[in-house]
Amino acid sequence: MKTNILIGQSGGPTAAINASLSGVIREAVKSAGIGGIYGMLNGVEGLLERKIIDLRKSFKDAEDFGRLAATPAMALGSCRYKLPPLPPSMPPQAGGSARTPSSAEPPPDAAYGRILQIFRDFGIGMFFYIGGNDSMDTVRQLSAFFRANGEDVRCVGVPKTVDNDLRVTDHTPGFGSAAKYIACCVAELALDSSVYDMFNVIIVEIMGRNAGWLTAAAALARDSGCAAPQLIYLPESPFDPDGFIEKVKAYSAEKRLLIAAVSEGVRTKDGQYLSAAGASRDTFGHAALAGAGKYLENLVKERLGCKVRSIELSVLQRSAGHYASATDIAEAMTIGEEAVRAALAGKTGVMMTLERVSDEPYLVRCGTAPVEDCANLEKTVPAGWIVDGCDVGAEMLGYLRPLVKGRARCYEKGGAPEYLFLDKTIAAPAPANE
Amino acid sequence: MKTNILIGQSGGPTAAINASLSGVIREAVKSAGIGGIYGMLNGVEGLLERKIIDLRKSFKDAEDFGRLAATPAMALGSCRYKLPPLPPSMPPQAGGSARTPSSAEPPPDAAYGRILQIFRDFGIGMFFYIGGNDSMDTVRQLSAFFRANGEDVRCVGVPKTVDNDLRVTDHTPGFGSAAKYIACCVAELALDSSVYDMFNVIIVEIMGRNAGWLTAAAALARDSGCAAPQLIYLPESPFDPDGFIEKVKAYSAEKRLLIAAVSEGVRTKDGQYLSAAGASRDTFGHAALAGAGKYLENLVKERLGCKVRSIELSVLQRSAGHYASATDIAEAMTIGEEAVRAALAGKTGVMMTLERVSDEPYLVRCGTAPVEDCANLEKTVPAGWIVDGCDVGAEMLGYLRPLVKGRARCYEKGGAPEYLFLDKTIAAPAPANE
Repeated sequence: MKTNILIGQSGGPTAAINASLSGVIREAVKSAGIGGIYGMLNGVEGLLERKIIDLRKSFKDAEDFGRLAATPAMALGSCRYKLPPLPPSMPPQAGGSARTPSSAEPPPDAAYGRILQIFRDFGIGMFFYIGGNDSMDTVRQLSAFFRANGEDVRCVGVPKTVDNDLRVTDHTPGFGSAAKYIACCVAELALDSSVYDMFNVIIVEIMGRNAGWLTAAAALARDSGCAAPQLIYLPESPFDPDGFIEKVKAYSAEKRLLIAAVSEGVRTKDGQYLSAAGASRDTFGHAALAGAGKYLENLVKERLGCKVRSIELSVLQRSAGHYASATDIAEAMTIGEEAVRAALAGKTGVMMTLERVSDEPYLVRCGTAPVEDCANLEKTVPAGWIVDGCDVGAEMLGYLRPLVKGRARCYEKGGAPEYLFLDKTIAAPAPANE
Repeated sequence: MKTNILIGQSGGPTAAINASLSGVIREAVKSAGIGGIYGMLNGVEGLLERKIIDLRKSFKDAEDFGRLAATPAMALGSCRYKLPPLPPSMPPQAGGSARTPSSAEPPPDAAYGRILQIFRDFGIGMFFYIGGNDSMDTVRQLSAFFRANGEDVRCVGVPKTVDNDLRVTDHTPGFGSAAKYIACCVAELALDSSVYDMFNVIIVEIMGRNAGWLTAAAALARDSGCAAPQLIYLPESPFDPDGFIEKVKAYSAEKRLLIAAVSEGVRTKDGQYLSAAGASRDTFGHAALAGAGKYLENLVKERLGCKVRSIELSVLQRSAGHYASATDIAEAMTIGEEAVRAALAGKTGVMMTLERVSDEPYLVRCGTAPVEDCANLEKTVPAGWIVDGCDVGAEMLGYLRPLVKGRARCYEKGGAPEYLFLDKTIAAPAPANE
């Protein structure tokens, strides 16, 4: 008896999350024990609306696995919906509760009951959810729910984040590509901004509300031969505006260009975000939250009067498929494939992990960890990896370098990137075949 | 008797301007008639300070020509200095005038006299200036000056701009790479922003104060298979804020994502820049010019209340060497090589041009045009290529597509781009060798 599988994506986009999707599908296609391969659109929210597609129909040839892996963002879409807490009492019935829902959201047992019914209708025996720590919580809830209901549905989490803030795993797919892009952007900004023979300051604001991994990656720009970034501020260290201005002033005497890489989440020692301090009035008189970069740009202008500009790398840093790390994309595919093997081996309630065996030569192996160890928890940069509150040290560089190695293959059509778009026709339920 | 040559760069950085520098050097190295190959740092401004380097010393092997071509921004640096108008009366003496300068700037005859002396000291018989229309004016002035002084110094302009606003030439090196990067960014933003199942608006602000070529290139994102950008606004068409809001509202009913590509230079029908209209107060209470994108973001928020964000592609769009167009980089090298051949053939006071022979197959040939025909003039998008004031038509796409074709080679060291940095040791004057 074959089983059918269901795959979803959730959280924010990355350049590698479709590579993990591609890996799950590729391994599933090869597995004799797997029949139907279904994808849910817009995560658990779409699942509740039965927005399920047949992924076997999306692939014309083997090259399409590569094309999907090279497509950034999320081919299945995402959602912001979180499952309600597990119903405390009796296991819900398939089909959902008959109780009248008290709000627009289905009550807990209705949501779980509906999911149970859909899984039965589609003959789903394995569920793969590719996402960050919120998504791992969904894996935790669903695996506990199916277990409590005596259903053999194996739930496996496949990690992805750009922030690299998941515990247990050495790093998360998606991070390496964003790190590579950020380092390259900083190097190119350094080249661009040093063409005039004058002192100027650039503040580059980088993603990361609580974890500074991405901002730390700006340090890799130095491997291109440029001195930038001269200053690096992570949210893990309290930010001192006066100290920052003193440092900029010291540079102004001798240097032509100063680049400061600043995490969007930097906070002063009393915990206030710079972005909150930088609130300004927009065209229509509304208070607008300026980012940390804009705030520091204004601060430098006000205090030192020198040429300064701030640049936000924006969402492009997480979806820059055109400059993804070959290592990252390969690992993202592999971890997707390994997730299928883990489920076939009977695992459930686990998240796939990457364990680093060594930096040089760079060796990693895939493993699994109980999803409870990762769900809703954050991994931040160790204090010992931060230097003087404004740089990162050798441990960080040794950690980062292997993750950005190589350029992932890009497919092109004319001069434009060639992406794979999945056929989003909603599938009819079909039980698992013999 | 061999002659020495001098090369400079001026204007804003591009991803291809070093490819032209590489082309000039590569052809000069091959030419029996050329001895010393010098570069001036920071354009004409550095020239007046004798900041001259020996470019023959910067190349270890043939691969370095490729490495320089793949390095974005300007290896020789740039300047904002403009030569004073040609002295009206007698030709200046070498060594500069003995008159006391009336200001910090040298008086016209002193500047030209100093240049004459430096050219004589270094035995310069050919001068190549890679830049935009201001730089072409410098070529015009210097070639007229040397001619009036009976000096055989051949002055050849090598065009570069990201804006593509130079006349006479079909397009300018540097544009194709920026166009390719912009199209890719818009496609990746479209993928990134369509992961949630809800209407949202993204305003992408693109470089181009008076000419809309770069903004038009956003249309190539559609070649990746996405519908974005749905709206395209160039500075050549008067912008109507109410009409824009009506269009956004119409899209909101049925679409999930709307991307508007907007040139930084869009103006209302009375000629006012949106950026001026968007003036706001910064953290410190100073009036700050918001960009056109920020202005439209606030306008959409105010009038429609839907999810909207603006993204500035910033200077990264002109210096994205990691995603340069193979066609652009190859043409930039070729036009540099051809400039040397033109000078050897006796041309002076000319700008190199690219003449398009056909779109399909794409064929171009290099030519020359009197520099007077290009200096200080701008080429804007023909009215007939703009559709309904908010899109571009088939002529534009046919024009753009060949220019973005292929990905230029990137050199990598570990995971970081490998750039070539020139040795900036100031050279001692040496007359041309036998």
